[in-house]
Amino acid sequence: MDLSSFPRSEHPSVAPRFYRESRSVPLPHTAVNIEDAFWAPRLRTLRERTLFHIYEQFRLNEYFEFYRRPWKDGTRPIPYVFWESDFSKWLEAASYSLATHPNPELERLVDEVIDYIGSFQQPDGYLNLWFTAVEPQKRWTNLRDWHELYCAGHLIEAAVAHFQATGKRTLLERVCRYADYIDSVFGREEGKKRGYCGHQEIELALIKLYHATGEKRYLHVSQYFVEERGSQPHYFDAEARARGDDPAAFWAKTYEYNQSHVPVREQHEVVGHAVRAMYFASAIADLARELHDDTLLRTCELLWHHLLSKRLYLTGGLGSSDDNEGMTADYDLPNDTAYAETCAAIGLVLWAHRLLQLEREGGYADVLERALYNGVLSGLSLDGEAFFYENPLESRGTHHRQPWFRCACCPPNIARLLASLGQYIYGVSETDIIIHLYIQSTATIAIANQRVTLHQFTNYPWDGKIHVNLELAEPALFAINLRIPGWCRTASLSINGEKIALEQQINKGYVRIERQWQAGDTILLDLAMPIERIYAHPSIRDDVGSVALQRGPLVYCLETADNAIPLNLIQLSASAPLHSQFDATTLGGVTLLTGPAHVQTTADWGETLYRTTPPTSQEHTLVAIPYYAWDNRQPGEMRVWIRERP
Amino acid sequence: MDLSSFPRSEHPSVAPRFYRESRSVPLPHTAVNIEDAFWAPRLRTLRERTLFHIYEQFRLNEYFEFYRRPWKDGTRPIPYVFWESDFSKWLEAASYSLATHPNPELERLVDEVIDYIGSFQQPDGYLNLWFTAVEPQKRWTNLRDWHELYCAGHLIEAAVAHFQATGKRTLLERVCRYADYIDSVFGREEGKKRGYCGHQEIELALIKLYHATGEKRYLHVSQYFVEERGSQPHYFDAEARARGDDPAAFWAKTYEYNQSHVPVREQHEVVGHAVRAMYFASAIADLARELHDDTLLRTCELLWHHLLSKRLYLTGGLGSSDDNEGMTADYDLPNDTAYAETCAAIGLVLWAHRLLQLEREGGYADVLERALYNGVLSGLSLDGEAFFYENPLESRGTHHRQPWFRCACCPPNIARLLASLGQYIYGVSETDIIIHLYIQSTATIAIANQRVTLHQFTNYPWDGKIHVNLELAEPALFAINLRIPGWCRTASLSINGEKIALEQQINKGYVRIERQWQAGDTILLDLAMPIERIYAHPSIRDDVGSVALQRGPLVYCLETADNAIPLNLIQLSASAPLHSQFDATTLGGVTLLTGPAHVQTTADWGETLYRTTPPTSQEHTLVAIPYYAWDNRQPGEMRVWIRERP
Repeated sequence: MDLSSFPRSEHPSVAPRFYRESRSVPLPHTAVNIEDAFWAPRLRTLRERTLFHIYEQFRLNEYFEFYRRPWKDGTRPIPYVFWESDFSKWLEAASYSLATHPNPELERLVDEVIDYIGSFQQPDGYLNLWFTAVEPQKRWTNLRDWHELYCAGHLIEAAVAHFQATGKRTLLERVCRYADYIDSVFGREEGKKRGYCGHQEIELALIKLYHATGEKRYLHVSQYFVEERGSQPHYFDAEARARGDDPAAFWAKTYEYNQSHVPVREQHEVVGHAVRAMYFASAIADLARELHDDTLLRTCELLWHHLLSKRLYLTGGLGSSDDNEGMTADYDLPNDTAYAETCAAIGLVLWAHRLLQLEREGGYADVLERALYNGVLSGLSLDGEAFFYENPLESRGTHHRQPWFRCACCPPNIARLLASLGQYIYGVSETDIIIHLYIQSTATIAIANQRVTLHQFTNYPWDGKIHVNLELAEPALFAINLRIPGWCRTASLSINGEKIALEQQINKGYVRIERQWQAGDTILLDLAMPIERIYAHPSIRDDVGSVALQRGPLVYCLETADNAIPLNLIQLSASAPLHSQFDATTLGGVTLLTGPAHVQTTADWGETLYRTTPPTSQEHTLVAIPYYAWDNRQPGEMRVWIRERP
Repeated sequence: MDLSSFPRSEHPSVAPRFYRESRSVPLPHTAVNIEDAFWAPRLRTLRERTLFHIYEQFRLNEYFEFYRRPWKDGTRPIPYVFWESDFSKWLEAASYSLATHPNPELERLVDEVIDYIGSFQQPDGYLNLWFTAVEPQKRWTNLRDWHELYCAGHLIEAAVAHFQATGKRTLLERVCRYADYIDSVFGREEGKKRGYCGHQEIELALIKLYHATGEKRYLHVSQYFVEERGSQPHYFDAEARARGDDPAAFWAKTYEYNQSHVPVREQHEVVGHAVRAMYFASAIADLARELHDDTLLRTCELLWHHLLSKRLYLTGGLGSSDDNEGMTADYDLPNDTAYAETCAAIGLVLWAHRLLQLEREGGYADVLERALYNGVLSGLSLDGEAFFYENPLESRGTHHRQPWFRCACCPPNIARLLASLGQYIYGVSETDIIIHLYIQSTATIAIANQRVTLHQFTNYPWDGKIHVNLELAEPALFAINLRIPGWCRTASLSINGEKIALEQQINKGYVRIERQWQAGDTILLDLAMPIERIYAHPSIRDDVGSVALQRGPLVYCLETADNAIPLNLIQLSASAPLHSQFDATTLGGVTLLTGPAHVQTTADWGETLYRTTPPTSQEHTLVAIPYYAWDNRQPGEMRVWIRERP
């Protein structure tokens, strides 16, 4: 079995179909207890430090004061119009945490923030802080730029999470009133505005609200927002004119920026602002599922294929340019200037997770895992109190994690993703349990008319051995699906000690074992995890002549802390042996990669800039660390793509 | 003889001295008739097309109308405050041309432009178009940004050239009145402004005016401008405050931008705006010469050493960033984003030429030649009617010559340099004739009390054989100095067929032959001109792993027109044989370099972005053209630094 090409992305040349038989739903994070050495300590840090750190940043940056007494002068950072979405994402993250780890102090802060936000709700249900406290006269006058419905979306997601975590309806009822009001303002009916938000988010939030409340109107409003987007005459044109602005003077120059250049079903390429693109794609997947809409699924497949075959960084990051915080051209994936916003990689996880529910396709899980372990996780420091906004694949030594940003979308976003990490591990359907991710954990799953407890033991991502153990009251017929990751070339499987021939069993990246399961059944999966050399498509200019190192799901990088020389001078021979070794004392415990390399020396150059004799090299023992862990020690350079000596 | 390291730049660790014995003056371009196959046709194109093309651009861009009726609206390009310097540089170029090639039509246009400019002169002598016609109230209120004295400088240079070419005193007398007025405004005396221009230029112009008129005050004003620059309290601070501006809000952020951060004798590094830096350095060299000032010479040597050892492109271009049109950090020499303004390379020629007059040091001539044949000449298209402003060493296909620029400093600047090219070929002193450049030409030189006619025959830069033939009335004792270029590793010399052993004769890049010369004496110099592979200092990030090709003084590049594949995929083996062949049908006749190379293929990649198998290569016959000639055919990519396969 050689699955050496990845990300796995088959060209959608076969006619798309609505994949009923392989649909599943995620096992909620409340049904999963993560117990491993990799994630569990991170999640504890998240609960004990990150969530409080973010709250403290609200305080330090006067988030609460601002809306009571907006400032205009230049003595303090000017808030963004969407600052309140930071509250919402934090509320969502805190709620996920409270659902599994009650904490009265955190719950008190959550209630305070909810009360604070609630105090701004207007009699008509409208609930936006900026356009109530700061610029009330500008309500709904610039959907294109001002994130008004985006903020509504995040508040709705927070409310749903809060309700599900605590059973409290305080925020949920407020957002339902707000959503009802939004429904009364937007739509195709006479007298309504035919608008939609410049930053997609409310679309997927309304689907969550629909699930939480059963109110189908919310689904329809979401569908309206997705389907109205990009239709002609263009709402953002008309809206600009109504403000007295020239639509052609749009600062982002093109409606590709917010994916409103054409209607949804005509979109075949991932363009524009990367976070917008991912949230939009997630909403499209949601709607495809809810509406059984084959054409929306087809749109997702085309977008997915385009992203994977042309515009995705090895780390699962996306968005090549800081100009538009987004996409540029096919194969334009520069390393040092990569934007690769943490939020965009998070958005890719959200999208991949939704597609995985539509079809049990390992390619979706591969990308989800790649983004999660690399381009997302890099966004959070080991101490849980500093963040990356951009996640470049090369740094000349000036890019460092920050405790906060004036545009602080990423910190609470990574918090809400990680606080709900449990939901990404398992999927369930009527007949199947699916293990998407290998993370040591205990899951409680209702299947075959009983409650099955599944224990997963593994030292993943450092080791590819996974041991699954079942507890169930009485034997039952169902299927367990195990993902065989795209990065894995050799795997072996045994059940109760009996080896299973895998080759014929793998279907779209999963092996499905249907049998009469009984208590004490054990599955042993061994995913070989050698160090892999990764090469990039030659059309990616910046990677030509270079190699990246990967082991299991982890992309590696060089850092000055381990390689005290200019990193671009390091050359790795194509044949150099590489060695992996777990080191408990480095970066909280990581598997390091080491190997012999060459380094061009400047010693024999004197004061000459150019000469006719080639540079000479000396030997160097290269040390690589997992990409996610960089910039947690002394500042220095970083590099994922290493020059290779053929 | 191996002189393989270049640019030759010895660290100025020896105490500097004022080099009287090796001083020389340039033989004026009027005493030199260029007759070669390389430059002569270019100079004809310059005279017959470029000078008229530039005049036509003045007309098309309403240069003349503007000052009669300044516009403020956005319907036409807003002129720069220094547009009038384009007139001056064109006048200077046209005057050089008229001096050797009379042309009544051109002379008529010159006289018209001189009359036009002259009509703006004020009773007090002030002669600036912008601050007379457009903003008269702002005279001398922003020396830092508004190029007022810079424009004066170019007008003075034009006047001197015009006077020397035509004997007409019209413009010369006007600029003398203007210079007298400037002398009355600026200086350390009570009541005078202690200012100087944000863009150096008047400093070297005033020295030319001093030479043309013998008026020593002009030298002293120049000395004042150079020596006052950067002194404290800082004039630009005081001037900003007087305007009601905050000096700290200076848009360029640092006075390094205009080299006024410290006084001249404390400047040891080439910083800031590249053209400003070169014009300033040229003025420093002029003053060192005029004042016999060892400290100014020392400053030049330190700046020269810094530029050559840290900040010069292989093409003789300089200025790494478009942010400041200038210098960034040591070894920061990116190729695709190189600014390398044509004017900066011209400024380097001006500076090197001045230093070469102070000391017969081949390193100065090497750099002069390198810049002239590469980073300067690239600035002009083969048809003489399109220009580069930036001269990057790599283009992804979007950088092309333009017929004109809104900031059109480069077109008339390259015109004035090339129209006076003759003056760069020969130097003379009481006892010596020095041949700096090898260009087929006839020079008429007064030496040893007679007029010597020197014929130089060569097919340089395509061939390194130089044949020098002397005509003189009677035998005479003097020396002829022949430059042995830094790029040359093997040279042979014979006089009247008798071989001269060169090894012991070369002193600082020149071989000096002192003897009783007589009519018919012939010198044969043969400079071996193989293809050289050039490597960059490993601290230049963008050149690591790459090689450049050079033959004689010419740097080569790859262009899509000859290599119809993405150029970054081409790999040249370190051992690949390379071949040179003159091709009369390509680019007006050039020596092409060819050789076997490898190209990574994308054919076996399918729709995958990353994979574990290395890219495969196929063979490709690489074709390289001289750098100066790129972008004269169909648009495409260009690349000087070629990836090398070790």
